[in-house]
Amino acid sequence: MESIETQKARQVCGILDELDLDCWLIWVRETDQIVDPAMRLVFAGDLVWQSALLFTRDGERIAIVGEHDAGGLPDGAFDRIVGYGAGIGSVLRDELTRLDPRSIAINVSRSDVCADGMTAGMREILGTCLAETPYESRLVSAERLIGKLRGRKLPDEIDRIRAAVATTERIFEEIYEHLAVGQTEREIHAYAHERVRAHGAGFAWQPASNPAVDAGPDKGFGHVGPSDNRTKAGHLLHFDFGVRVNGYCSDLQRMVFFGSPAEIPEEIAHAFETVVGAIDAAVEYLEPGRIGHEVDAVARRVLVERGYPEYRHALGHQVGRNAHDGGVLLGPRWERYGEAPDGAVEAGNVFTIEPNAPTESYGMVSLEEDVLVTDSGCEYLSTPQRELICIET
Amino acid sequence: MESIETQKARQVCGILDELDLDCWLIWVRETDQIVDPAMRLVFAGDLVWQSALLFTRDGERIAIVGEHDAGGLPDGAFDRIVGYGAGIGSVLRDELTRLDPRSIAINVSRSDVCADGMTAGMREILGTCLAETPYESRLVSAERLIGKLRGRKLPDEIDRIRAAVATTERIFEEIYEHLAVGQTEREIHAYAHERVRAHGAGFAWQPASNPAVDAGPDKGFGHVGPSDNRTKAGHLLHFDFGVRVNGYCSDLQRMVFFGSPAEIPEEIAHAFETVVGAIDAAVEYLEPGRIGHEVDAVARRVLVERGYPEYRHALGHQVGRNAHDGGVLLGPRWERYGEAPDGAVEAGNVFTIEPNAPTESYGMVSLEEDVLVTDSGCEYLSTPQRELICIET
Repeated sequence: MESIETQKARQVCGILDELDLDCWLIWVRETDQIVDPAMRLVFAGDLVWQSALLFTRDGERIAIVGEHDAGGLPDGAFDRIVGYGAGIGSVLRDELTRLDPRSIAINVSRSDVCADGMTAGMREILGTCLAETPYESRLVSAERLIGKLRGRKLPDEIDRIRAAVATTERIFEEIYEHLAVGQTEREIHAYAHERVRAHGAGFAWQPASNPAVDAGPDKGFGHVGPSDNRTKAGHLLHFDFGVRVNGYCSDLQRMVFFGSPAEIPEEIAHAFETVVGAIDAAVEYLEPGRIGHEVDAVARRVLVERGYPEYRHALGHQVGRNAHDGGVLLGPRWERYGEAPDGAVEAGNVFTIEPNAPTESYGMVSLEEDVLVTDSGCEYLSTPQRELICIET
Repeated sequence: MESIETQKARQVCGILDELDLDCWLIWVRETDQIVDPAMRLVFAGDLVWQSALLFTRDGERIAIVGEHDAGGLPDGAFDRIVGYGAGIGSVLRDELTRLDPRSIAINVSRSDVCADGMTAGMREILGTCLAETPYESRLVSAERLIGKLRGRKLPDEIDRIRAAVATTERIFEEIYEHLAVGQTEREIHAYAHERVRAHGAGFAWQPASNPAVDAGPDKGFGHVGPSDNRTKAGHLLHFDFGVRVNGYCSDLQRMVFFGSPAEIPEEIAHAFETVVGAIDAAVEYLEPGRIGHEVDAVARRVLVERGYPEYRHALGHQVGRNAHDGGVLLGPRWERYGEAPDGAVEAGNVFTIEPNAPTESYGMVSLEEDVLVTDSGCEYLSTPQRELICIET
């Protein structure tokens, strides 16, 4: 079977054609120090010297790499491998002259970190290499190309995300079994890490705040590590948790209540139902062709109509090789999101849906599901949480 | 005890003063996707939204980060933390106006990948944020700052490198015990990985070619993974191997001969002595104040005078958090090395010394040692290989 990277590399020429781009240039060096996340989609190895990976609209895959790197490229990953000695400039110019592309997409993007893997110094070097050629003026951003390449998950990629979601849900079940009143966030966090190791999984983001474990009303919400806060009867416990399985991620939030269902305060129940309602509304609306910020607005409206403030982040992001997988964002049109909320949803995209609602006395109620956009709508990859998990006290 | 990152952050103000720079700006986002290697020196966490970490000549450490990130910053890492909601631009401008620096060093470098952690898209965003302020024109490269910060290893950093070297040497001994004629490179590579895991160490570079295991004369040399080549009586075996312990690396090459010392062919013995002689000459010459390319030239001359071609890479690179740790390079003034060979060696630098010499019939003879530059010269961190390791057949 072809590697996922080779399968993704074969997706490139179709997307180039669709976007009327002639070629894609990945321009990197010492990739074990700074890795271009878009390179990781199509190439699994590391490159030491300055390297150009070129993918053409015709489907040709070319690697221009240092002579020491050339021998280590995986079999079948490239149609043409050019090794160089003292400097890459003339070799790159020769290759571009041969191809003579009218447009060259490069990994520079304001809006999408996943499409912004070229460093500023490498950008300057590329400018020097292409000075006095027609090609500097033909450089364009690969943002849309990478968004589509990354976003259109192949069946093998979806299987891996399903596996990560399934592992996360199994570990949640193990955590629920283990939970009791009086435990600290740090203890619960340590237990979760033990279970991640037992399942042989990796972490979808930094282990220090994965899972986020937020006990009770006084916890600073966000990307915050566990504290000595303790679980308490009548209080909530919130998790934000994602694992990595075979290189692909999950990202889920779950809510636990310490007490019986009958003891759930009205304020919590109302917030929980509202968050579930916002997720339902977004999932109902989500289908190919929807614009990112429109989907966000549907869920945001549910919250505001029920008297809650707007959540201070996006409704959902794509999930894949990374927990935040770039491309089209289900988010509001705020400065910090750039153009990411303006793109259209496509079949094969995998999104989180993660609205939240604050309570006066019990802290934030927040859930997060993972969904796959299908040809006609979307389907859950996770088993959506419809009730609070109640831990009897 | 202060974390290594906080200790490194405290080194910054002295180096800023020495270089007559007013402040250093680390400008990043989603650092679990693209990590600025210079940020890792002074900050261990991850940041999601666009973030500015500012270090001033006066020793002030400022973090401007998204409100969701602000709570997760480690205690004591920053003197001032400013959280923002919709966009960072105005907050950054306010902070720079307060500090009014005459120069702002940013992580953009043509020569040094370790100093080139700002992406091209983030560089554009910074330009927009600072448009119509005096500060865009005060941006300069942090290359020299980062080179010095990274290169001047603290005692705690040297201890960690020593630990990585010691672990590597222990694993080499275990590998030598295990070696026999007829093993494949893949088998030896797999055994090395088993030993790395048994010692609880990580890899200094990609495991696929770490260790490089090169058996016999026909192996493509360089960053190449193990093949089905077998060890054979009368042949050489070459390793290039580095582990990571507590976040710091080793990088060593060793040569093994299958046969008794009396059976070593003259051609191999001559090349081996020459490589050792080149290392000795470089180590003898290396001291604070030497220029990178001068040190390279000393070893290169030994090889050429004894009739060998020049090695097609640098004599040595710095080692630290990364196997290739950036900064001053002991290398020739070739296009691809940029200005890295033009810098002066400093006390506290840790370098590899890795010349090689080809043979007609037995492949490449290549050794690599790790050395620490002291106030008056340099000392080995590794136990230098002075004889071929002979495996009786």
